[in-house]
Amino acid sequence: MIYANRLHHEGVKKILLIIMDGLGGRPSGLLGGRTSLQAAYRPNMNFLVRNGIGGLMYPVSQGIRAGSDTSHLSILGYDPRVVYTGRGPFEAMGLGMDVSKGDVAFRANFATRADSGFISDRRAGRIQESTDELCRAISLNVGGVTFEVKPGVEHRAALVMHGDHLSSRVSDSDPHEAGKPPLDITATVDSAKRTANVLNQYLERIRKILDDHPFNRDRVSNGKLPANELLIRGAGMAPDLQDFQSKYGLRAACVAGIPMISGICKLMGMDIIHAKGVTGRLDSDYESKISSAVKSLDNHDFVIVNLKGPDIAGHDGNPLAKRDVIERADSAYRQLVSLGHRVVISITGDHSTPAEYGDHSGDPVPILIYTENGRKDCAKRFDEVSCSRGSLRILSGDLMQYLLSVSDITEKYGA
Amino acid sequence: MIYANRLHHEGVKKILLIIMDGLGGRPSGLLGGRTSLQAAYRPNMNFLVRNGIGGLMYPVSQGIRAGSDTSHLSILGYDPRVVYTGRGPFEAMGLGMDVSKGDVAFRANFATRADSGFISDRRAGRIQESTDELCRAISLNVGGVTFEVKPGVEHRAALVMHGDHLSSRVSDSDPHEAGKPPLDITATVDSAKRTANVLNQYLERIRKILDDHPFNRDRVSNGKLPANELLIRGAGMAPDLQDFQSKYGLRAACVAGIPMISGICKLMGMDIIHAKGVTGRLDSDYESKISSAVKSLDNHDFVIVNLKGPDIAGHDGNPLAKRDVIERADSAYRQLVSLGHRVVISITGDHSTPAEYGDHSGDPVPILIYTENGRKDCAKRFDEVSCSRGSLRILSGDLMQYLLSVSDITEKYGA
Repeated sequence: MIYANRLHHEGVKKILLIIMDGLGGRPSGLLGGRTSLQAAYRPNMNFLVRNGIGGLMYPVSQGIRAGSDTSHLSILGYDPRVVYTGRGPFEAMGLGMDVSKGDVAFRANFATRADSGFISDRRAGRIQESTDELCRAISLNVGGVTFEVKPGVEHRAALVMHGDHLSSRVSDSDPHEAGKPPLDITATVDSAKRTANVLNQYLERIRKILDDHPFNRDRVSNGKLPANELLIRGAGMAPDLQDFQSKYGLRAACVAGIPMISGICKLMGMDIIHAKGVTGRLDSDYESKISSAVKSLDNHDFVIVNLKGPDIAGHDGNPLAKRDVIERADSAYRQLVSLGHRVVISITGDHSTPAEYGDHSGDPVPILIYTENGRKDCAKRFDEVSCSRGSLRILSGDLMQYLLSVSDITEKYGA
Repeated sequence: MIYANRLHHEGVKKILLIIMDGLGGRPSGLLGGRTSLQAAYRPNMNFLVRNGIGGLMYPVSQGIRAGSDTSHLSILGYDPRVVYTGRGPFEAMGLGMDVSKGDVAFRANFATRADSGFISDRRAGRIQESTDELCRAISLNVGGVTFEVKPGVEHRAALVMHGDHLSSRVSDSDPHEAGKPPLDITATVDSAKRTANVLNQYLERIRKILDDHPFNRDRVSNGKLPANELLIRGAGMAPDLQDFQSKYGLRAACVAGIPMISGICKLMGMDIIHAKGVTGRLDSDYESKISSAVKSLDNHDFVIVNLKGPDIAGHDGNPLAKRDVIERADSAYRQLVSLGHRVVISITGDHSTPAEYGDHSGDPVPILIYTENGRKDCAKRFDEVSCSRGSLRILSGDLMQYLLSVSDITEKYGA
């Protein structure tokens, strides 16, 4: 029903969707009771909402504390309650690993296994050193399956299995508490038996490698806990997502600094645009990112941009840094204010990350939609409070349909 | 997905949900075109919404004229379209009867059966005297089933069957119009045949008791219609509701003046708190009720309070009495304004009962959610009009999820 079959009609517009990661906030004492977004100097976003419409979006559904993965899936019209099988593949993509169709991925912890065979510390003393070397040592082939491990923060890592006929219907090796041995992997369905067997072989093989590794010998001689066990959990397959262009009829591109978001968009068959100076950190070059996105509109119908900054500052618990990075984004949006005659511009968040809370919350996110000669409403500034006067109250899963309708790109439903 | 698995984390808050029964109204000529809520002096509710968020809630769904039973089920996250099998058990609970799992309950009318065996008046002349004595006379054991009858208003009553292997899949004895005989109960499925048989035996047995009862002899000699037939309808089973604590992970309590609401909460396994001076009428002691609720938060994670007053005044068609009882509630809410650091407070209605209309309407109800350091919006006063400037537009079935997210009590969905 929402296929873009009027794409080549005159006056039809392209769509630019900017996701400011973790945008929503809560009042901050450090900002006189305002949110970071309220406190930011944001003339461009205010221009866009004042000349367009504003409101609130509920990521996934009302009151859900959405992750960036589930929320981006939902925003792009792929219901996570259907396509999301587990965090494993998204954590792995987040570490820059390639997770393709048919691969199985796990979240992993380096842990300490005592001589008794029991886990004495699930986090191997929260390792501060890079485990890159360890990860490379245990990335190997076992039973025709390629196992790839990459380090995350501290004791965390991800494991991806590349091979044929793999299944994610297997249990965790992680006993989820210390004082117990690592668990054998078991298949929860018959067709996963081979996957479980090869996983058990692999985990047995790497125990010896980890025990003997110089990294761990050094740790022990320095009185630290060795990282001699890899506990795995949250098995998931890369979701088999319908190609974005065949779903909507739109040639699409993604400009994102963080691998998890590009990974999701790649699974949808989008073109991945690498803009200069983009880091996925607070120092990312937003001018470059927005100008790459605008350029990409020349040969794409739909461009999605993710700016990770607000989420990082939110997780850091720093409402001032969050305000500052929002101001820097707004400054780059100067490039957008003259595009309304040919582009539908929407700016929103994938979830709230209030700096005062330091994690994702279930609060809704502000949203604006602007295009020349489009609807206007009573939202006069772009923030959590003023947008509550706007017209939009929308579930993330309905956003694509709404944007397509604003761009006059879809066929009439009925006569 | 909305299970409270972060319950023991620091900063997680408890939840107090106050349902002002029938709260929503319509403009009243007697109040200068204002609703009873707009006309009420309500500094405490205004404080809570001004420092929190406001909006409108749709009981069950938009435009539904919800009952208190269906609405409370929905508000607590039990979809009445799934769990609600009929009014019988809720009417019976409303009369203070114990309806447990496996019981079958009916709405009942005392009616007049003429010598011909036909019903001459379905309401036995709208009896004004108490039928308590009659009800006791026809509460008895037949065929291993205990039949219990309790009086309602005028000619109304409820019948509960306590026994094994009962079924609610049986027809009414009520012919729903005068000039017809009472109908035989029939089973609509095979497994209900025993229930139908024992019901027919019971109804036959009590005809003689009612015919001969002094209450009816007196009525006849005074020229009144005898209440010599019990017409039953709306068979339903007590719904088999998932335990609230296993559903949400929250220890919960209920403070309610009316038996129907405590009955519903009891079916969910909540603790029922009996506050002093609570009557379920307009004169109920709201100070006592609110202080009991606040005390209950010490050893519960979630407390629901029902204040029946606004609904009673609404049904009475008295917008001034409705205003006054709302003012009395607001005065008791003085106890709440300092709790925001440890409690998420939400005040709303289960449905609208506009006094000008005198019954439940399908209008949405105002809602507020307040906690310290939580979101704010543009709702500045707590009433039907000002709340329409607030951020919330919520279906009752999504409220629990929303409240849990405001209390930061649930796990993240995704990464």
